[in-house]
Amino acid sequence: MQAGDDLPSLIAGAAGELRPDDVLVIAQKIVSKAEGRTRALADVEPGEQALALGKANDKDPRLVQVVLDETSELLRADHGVLICETHHGFVCANAGVDMSNSPGDDVAILLPVDPDESARRIRAALAPARPGVVISDSFGRPWRLGVTDVAIGAAGVVVLDDLRGRPDAHGRELRATEVALADQIAAAGDLARGKASGEPVVLIRGADRVVTDDDGPGAAALRRPHGLDLFR
Amino acid sequence: MQAGDDLPSLIAGAAGELRPDDVLVIAQKIVSKAEGRTRALADVEPGEQALALGKANDKDPRLVQVVLDETSELLRADHGVLICETHHGFVCANAGVDMSNSPGDDVAILLPVDPDESARRIRAALAPARPGVVISDSFGRPWRLGVTDVAIGAAGVVVLDDLRGRPDAHGRELRATEVALADQIAAAGDLARGKASGEPVVLIRGADRVVTDDDGPGAAALRRPHGLDLFR
Repeated sequence: MQAGDDLPSLIAGAAGELRPDDVLVIAQKIVSKAEGRTRALADVEPGEQALALGKANDKDPRLVQVVLDETSELLRADHGVLICETHHGFVCANAGVDMSNSPGDDVAILLPVDPDESARRIRAALAPARPGVVISDSFGRPWRLGVTDVAIGAAGVVVLDDLRGRPDAHGRELRATEVALADQIAAAGDLARGKASGEPVVLIRGADRVVTDDDGPGAAALRRPHGLDLFR
Repeated sequence: MQAGDDLPSLIAGAAGELRPDDVLVIAQKIVSKAEGRTRALADVEPGEQALALGKANDKDPRLVQVVLDETSELLRADHGVLICETHHGFVCANAGVDMSNSPGDDVAILLPVDPDESARRIRAALAPARPGVVISDSFGRPWRLGVTDVAIGAAGVVVLDDLRGRPDAHGRELRATEVALADQIAAAGDLARGKASGEPVVLIRGADRVVTDDDGPGAAALRRPHGLDLFR
């Protein structure tokens, strides 16, 4: 995958005939590469904060600079980990910046500028089937070990499934009742992908319950507003 | 489902012939009910802290008392939400306590005392197939809206998939490389269950990549040690 590659055409070629009740789960990395969202570390001049954070956390300061450039707020820098809020409003390690080690050239891969727009564009290019599209990335969790895939971009799928309309005889329902369906789609996609297989696209078939005709609000709807954040 | 019901027999009867490469994703609520992990609110006498928290958060103080009894550490009480670490070490809303509104009787459903042991017991009872077993519950996330299902108990599945053995030419790999497979199994199970369907058990077939012969460490292995917790 290189900048400018026609990702929808490549997907359509590999997937065969797509259906309107399909959902494509696409790894963020391949979308970012196609969109040219990369930076060669050789071209990065680390600033003062990046030099200090790199030293304190045993990281390449040029890479830290790239992370800071993608960050709107640095929440934690500890244990060798940078927890960042990205310019999109996602909270994740290293602002979603990942390394690709191509021979002789260290390249940082950044998240797409607007992953929901990326998802909408891919979906539109896959007309007339217009399958649901989820762009996934692996995020850590503060109180659980291991990463799980979540949706950073989405088009044409139910992102948040609101179950709050369910009758509750006593007005005393305790549990949250919005389900982050798009995140569960991303997790299911990664499960199907399997261990370190590198398959960048997973096709979920027969998903008519989660596919919508309109593109919907995208994964942006999954960001928790700062006012509802108890752990910043 | 009632206390003392033989859950493995009920599952075996409903699922038909099970295979060794199956994984059963079982909703926590049905396991708790079978194990009698319930408390009638009528029998609960709220203490001072429960009365104060109930008043401040607009909750039934008897229910708050049940939550506190299941809690080892109360992390936050705000926005009408109690974020608790349970005695098992899980961090979640209301210590995993849920309400069941049966007519005329309000009953709180608690997490199983030892969900991994519950999973092992169910698995053993499903010999000779011994499918993988994941007991799932819906947890919120601090920076994302909506809940996703995670594993609170597991037996016979890969819980944490360690990809750290992958070659990295420059020693500079940024991203976390342990995948919380058991959580992704739980999320995929909920996705298959569908909206508010109430189906308490989902069968994932052909999951030989994630099923293990030994029961393994269980979902306890997914708890992040306090020393690695940046957001307590």
